[in-house]
Amino acid sequence: MNNVANDPLTRKLSTFVALSEVELAVLARLHGRCRTFKAGRDMVHQGQAERASYILSAGWVCSYKIQPDGTRQIVDFQVPGDFLGLRSVLLRTSDHSFEPIVDIKATEVLTSDLLDTFARAPRLATAILWAASRDEAMVVEHLVGIGRRDADARMAHFLLEMGARLSLVGLGDKQGYDCPLTQYHLADALGLSAVHVNRVLRQLREAGLVTFRDGHVTFEDFDGLVKLAEFDPAYLDQSGPLLK
Amino acid sequence: MNNVANDPLTRKLSTFVALSEVELAVLARLHGRCRTFKAGRDMVHQGQAERASYILSAGWVCSYKIQPDGTRQIVDFQVPGDFLGLRSVLLRTSDHSFEPIVDIKATEVLTSDLLDTFARAPRLATAILWAASRDEAMVVEHLVGIGRRDADARMAHFLLEMGARLSLVGLGDKQGYDCPLTQYHLADALGLSAVHVNRVLRQLREAGLVTFRDGHVTFEDFDGLVKLAEFDPAYLDQSGPLLK
Repeated sequence: MNNVANDPLTRKLSTFVALSEVELAVLARLHGRCRTFKAGRDMVHQGQAERASYILSAGWVCSYKIQPDGTRQIVDFQVPGDFLGLRSVLLRTSDHSFEPIVDIKATEVLTSDLLDTFARAPRLATAILWAASRDEAMVVEHLVGIGRRDADARMAHFLLEMGARLSLVGLGDKQGYDCPLTQYHLADALGLSAVHVNRVLRQLREAGLVTFRDGHVTFEDFDGLVKLAEFDPAYLDQSGPLLK
Repeated sequence: MNNVANDPLTRKLSTFVALSEVELAVLARLHGRCRTFKAGRDMVHQGQAERASYILSAGWVCSYKIQPDGTRQIVDFQVPGDFLGLRSVLLRTSDHSFEPIVDIKATEVLTSDLLDTFARAPRLATAILWAASRDEAMVVEHLVGIGRRDADARMAHFLLEMGARLSLVGLGDKQGYDCPLTQYHLADALGLSAVHVNRVLRQLREAGLVTFRDGHVTFEDFDGLVKLAEFDPAYLDQSGPLLK
């Protein structure tokens, strides 16, 4: 079981539900079809009616929608342990696209596997519903961020959220984390121009709060950044299991 | 079973999963504790750590977040058949507040009832996950709307989405629907000022597309409005059952 327990999804779901041997075995079966995807090539296209989702086990992905006028809104980034396109399974048509930001590893999960899992392991179903609810809570935060936060607070909040999410799967801590995003990713996620992103990052660095350079985010003053962003991680619900 | 089958949630979930007698009975048990809530009084406060969610059976509710500076971002509206605070059950802390817009009827659902339901009726769990995924798809659309749509298209898209959602539970059609929202609700949902909302509604009316007056939305030119909003209802996934 060591292999399974080290998987990012298992690690993440275990935060919420203490999984039994049987549930771990069901989860392990979900991880059967691991594949590699190249950076920059869409995995799932908006509007595509395919019945598979993925569990990301290594690398970063962005999910986005292209508007008819060609502009792109990044909805969220996915990190190891996250589902990609869980909605495209249940809603039948993908409501957005997924693009690997770096070369990634991901496991294909067929709808039938997922429904079978729900039937065999209801606690696991609850844990997956928890993960889906948490994904929604993050999108809500992004909506509020774009609607109501100024650019500095928006960026600070974003960098803190990614740090908290990565910590959950052992890929970050209060010191910082590796981050492959470009200024264009940040711009499309935060509703800013690339120039504006640069300016905001410079201001945060000069204020001694956070540095994002050479693919690494370093929290220089974690508490100060939390204060600036008014970051309350309650919506990420990482405080321990509900189901023992 | 007639009473149950007429319930908006049952009607909505039946779009996705053809429910058996047993599943209908489990769903009926969820509807045990129906209460009335007064307009304008919060049902669930942001940050409240209570373990209950609600199924809305009559009336409209808005879910919102208050930012530290006092501004309000409405995340979504709930109509009959929608869950309120499903995330507050699974995530333990409500990540936003719910306020009835009119006097409403809603049934309290305890976490234990919900988890029991998942264990007894996995297809029902799948249907509830579908509903949660659909809620997330709507929040994604709102994010894209605020990030990337101009005010006219944003309003048109919003009025069409509410129409489609209400149709699913028999409360609207291509002619229109009853709508208790004020210009302030629209403003806080769409990231516009109340003055701007008025101007946009006037423009849409004068263009012969849609009229919102005296608590009723009338689609004067449904297809024209769809075209203006570039409204593609695929994300609402209302096209029939996945699980027979």
